Amino acid sequence: MILRHLLLPDILELVEANRLNEVRDFLAKQPAPEITDLLAALDDKDALLIFRVLPRTLADEVFSLLEPNLQNWMLKNMAQEEVRYVLKGLTPDDRTALFEELPARVVKGLLTLLNDKDRKLALTLLGYPEGSVGRLMTDRYVTVNPDWTVTQTLDHLRAAGMDSETMTMIYITDAEGHLVDDLRLRRLILAAPMTRVRDLLDGHYASLTSLQDREEAVGIFQDYDLFALPVVDADGVLLGIVTVDDILDVAEEEATEDFHKMASVRPLQTSLKDATIRLLVHKRIGWLLALVGVNIFTGMGLSIFEETIQKVVALVFFMPLLIGSGGNAGSQAATLLVRAIATGDVESGDWWRIFFREIAVSVSIGAIMSAAVFFLGWWLGHSLGVGVVVAASMFALVIMGSLLGTTLPMLLDRLHLDPATAAPPLITSVADILGILIYFSIATLFFRWLPIG
Amino acid sequence: MILRHLLLPDILELVEANRLNEVRDFLAKQPAPEITDLLAALDDKDALLIFRVLPRTLADEVFSLLEPNLQNWMLKNMAQEEVRYVLKGLTPDDRTALFEELPARVVKGLLTLLNDKDRKLALTLLGYPEGSVGRLMTDRYVTVNPDWTVTQTLDHLRAAGMDSETMTMIYITDAEGHLVDDLRLRRLILAAPMTRVRDLLDGHYASLTSLQDREEAVGIFQDYDLFALPVVDADGVLLGIVTVDDILDVAEEEATEDFHKMASVRPLQTSLKDATIRLLVHKRIGWLLALVGVNIFTGMGLSIFEETIQKVVALVFFMPLLIGSGGNAGSQAATLLVRAIATGDVESGDWWRIFFREIAVSVSIGAIMSAAVFFLGWWLGHSLGVGVVVAASMFALVIMGSLLGTTLPMLLDRLHLDPATAAPPLITSVADILGILIYFSIATLFFRWLPIG
Repeated sequence: MILRHLLLPDILELVEANRLNEVRDFLAKQPAPEITDLLAALDDKDALLIFRVLPRTLADEVFSLLEPNLQNWMLKNMAQEEVRYVLKGLTPDDRTALFEELPARVVKGLLTLLNDKDRKLALTLLGYPEGSVGRLMTDRYVTVNPDWTVTQTLDHLRAAGMDSETMTMIYITDAEGHLVDDLRLRRLILAAPMTRVRDLLDGHYASLTSLQDREEAVGIFQDYDLFALPVVDADGVLLGIVTVDDILDVAEEEATEDFHKMASVRPLQTSLKDATIRLLVHKRIGWLLALVGVNIFTGMGLSIFEETIQKVVALVFFMPLLIGSGGNAGSQAATLLVRAIATGDVESGDWWRIFFREIAVSVSIGAIMSAAVFFLGWWLGHSLGVGVVVAASMFALVIMGSLLGTTLPMLLDRLHLDPATAAPPLITSVADILGILIYFSIATLFFRWLPIG
Repeated sequence: MILRHLLLPDILELVEANRLNEVRDFLAKQPAPEITDLLAALDDKDALLIFRVLPRTLADEVFSLLEPNLQNWMLKNMAQEEVRYVLKGLTPDDRTALFEELPARVVKGLLTLLNDKDRKLALTLLGYPEGSVGRLMTDRYVTVNPDWTVTQTLDHLRAAGMDSETMTMIYITDAEGHLVDDLRLRRLILAAPMTRVRDLLDGHYASLTSLQDREEAVGIFQDYDLFALPVVDADGVLLGIVTVDDILDVAEEEATEDFHKMASVRPLQTSLKDATIRLLVHKRIGWLLALVGVNIFTGMGLSIFEETIQKVVALVFFMPLLIGSGGNAGSQAATLLVRAIATGDVESGDWWRIFFREIAVSVSIGAIMSAAVFFLGWWLGHSLGVGVVVAASMFALVIMGSLLGTTLPMLLDRLHLDPATAAPPLITSVADILGILIYFSIATLFFRWLPIG
């Protein structure tokens, strides 16, 4: 932030004056995320110009941190040889992340620029399903043989370790490549030089499988408090590792997706800032139209009660209040539950307990709300009868909404659908129809038996 | 999960038969998170029994992973000497996290069980404001002198490192304790033995300050892709480090809190599974009652139009549809924006662009929705006039809702309030009142100038 806020004008001035060596010398001493931030604030052309003067390794790191849109634009506007260098400088997991964002046609072209080994690796990673752990893997880790001594292992690390993304954990594999155990680098360093690696092992380790869902991996990282986890195939062969920095990004992405689903927006893949008008309309209109469909039934439901409405117009005044309260109670219940399912706090074994507790909670909330609106109904409706009808309806609607908000996410989860799609607006719309039917049924019955007032 | 699902009955049988040595030998070989999961599935008494047979270091790790409720129960039911051991086994950041969850009275008692050094540290950490980076700090890191050689440094690590929570990064400090630079352990290991540490430094490092907000720290960790960051005070003196595993927890917690705010539930501190009925009612009733207050105005607004309603009852049938659509459009816009602000995607500099784009988006969405309901109004309302009024109102309400959903979060952010509290239900309620005023105003004007039909 410092660079962008304080030095942007100075840097632009140097660029204007073509004093690029000075820019280079200055930026070479800055951390990569600061430079990324600076490039994002420039227009694309200046960003590319400055990117080109960065020292090679810094440029690699900066590129991997850029927004996908800017990465894409830069690649399009670079010479082929330049693109080759940039791709070579990325770690395999960052490369997969980049390819995920680009159109298939572009990816195909880029793949031809990689050397054989990197191309094979990229194709392997892209072969894993979207959203799977396999796509997050990197091959930059160190494996050692359990029979080596600590000194031998440290020598091996010196020779092989330059390229590895993390050396916090070292992985022990047998001759067939099966993962045998993991070992913290610090245990290795703290051990006596002639100890055999085998004697440092504790015989248990955590691992992911390549086809596992990324969301599950977030939970496992949280449970184990580790910086990297090894990924194995069905036979236990070590395929790669996943590091926690990618998992932190996944956690934020998943939370954002669930957020958007809760508001009935189809998940945005790009940043909101860069989304086009067309894309936003496209992502938002679908659910809104679907809810219009649902709300037609609300209108039809209302028309059944035309007679009651004409008799006691005051009932209409309380409609938004009652319907809204039922829907709000429902979306509260649903949101609490959806989030708890997403974070693994609530599992299917807990459902009956949560359902029965929700009955107790909604009866309590319903009673309080009902008491609050009884006098309101009496006073604003100029009739004790309206007060009674409003209070009774409030009680029924809050319970109905809460139970709807609890059962719908549970039902979807049991059907193996994502509970976040039981978005509050959907629950609200269903609660609307049921609410209107309940409210005016109570009113019709009441005023049939009793004279008004 | 494996332990809990497959072996729970076997383990319980061994416990029943008092064959605790076998339980101990078996569990000693299992990873700590599996054991934590097993303990959570047992009743509290059995959990404590099994916890007691675990080997010391494993027990320390398991305890730090337990749910706060179970931690609390165990501490209450342990002998004082046992409690002392458990507290001693926790890292300072886990200890702070535990104290945060316990009542002040209990914490006071526990502090007396710590030795002088640990008590002083605990009090220091608890002295930082809630939600600050300071509370996440641990003192288990290694600092070295820039003048040491690589060999000297590695010897120092062997001697001092045993206790350190992470050794991925080593911190270089001067004689006054100021942070000078950071150094990756792998750079140290890969360097020639007689190199001086000073020559390995690159002169830049990222750091946090102790009073910084934890949410900010999540963003910095994401930008820098590091496993740990040093924390300094205003003078640049190194106070401690924060590790990424704590940050991953913060990211999930913050996302959950924002989620709950979006549904107008006051944030739950505990897990939903364990929340009591009383707590849930307490957290949910406040907003619901507040929204009743807002909705009274909706009713009052409606009563102004009593005459129009009595003249064209069919208008009431479209009320839920129109009001709902305006509110839904508004909560979509608000959710997208609130999440983008929370993740740092949108900053205050982007506001005008986002506002003007929202006008274009909402006009498009409004036009589509309006076309969709025109024929519906004509047909269900048995009147071309109702069709025109419904279509015109839909257009106006979608635009009104969207702009409300965009400006309210921006306004709150500018006022330095958390935009997530501009919860969709609030936006929906305000949109309700405005929507009813707009809808019936259009209807009243229209039917005043034109005969019905």
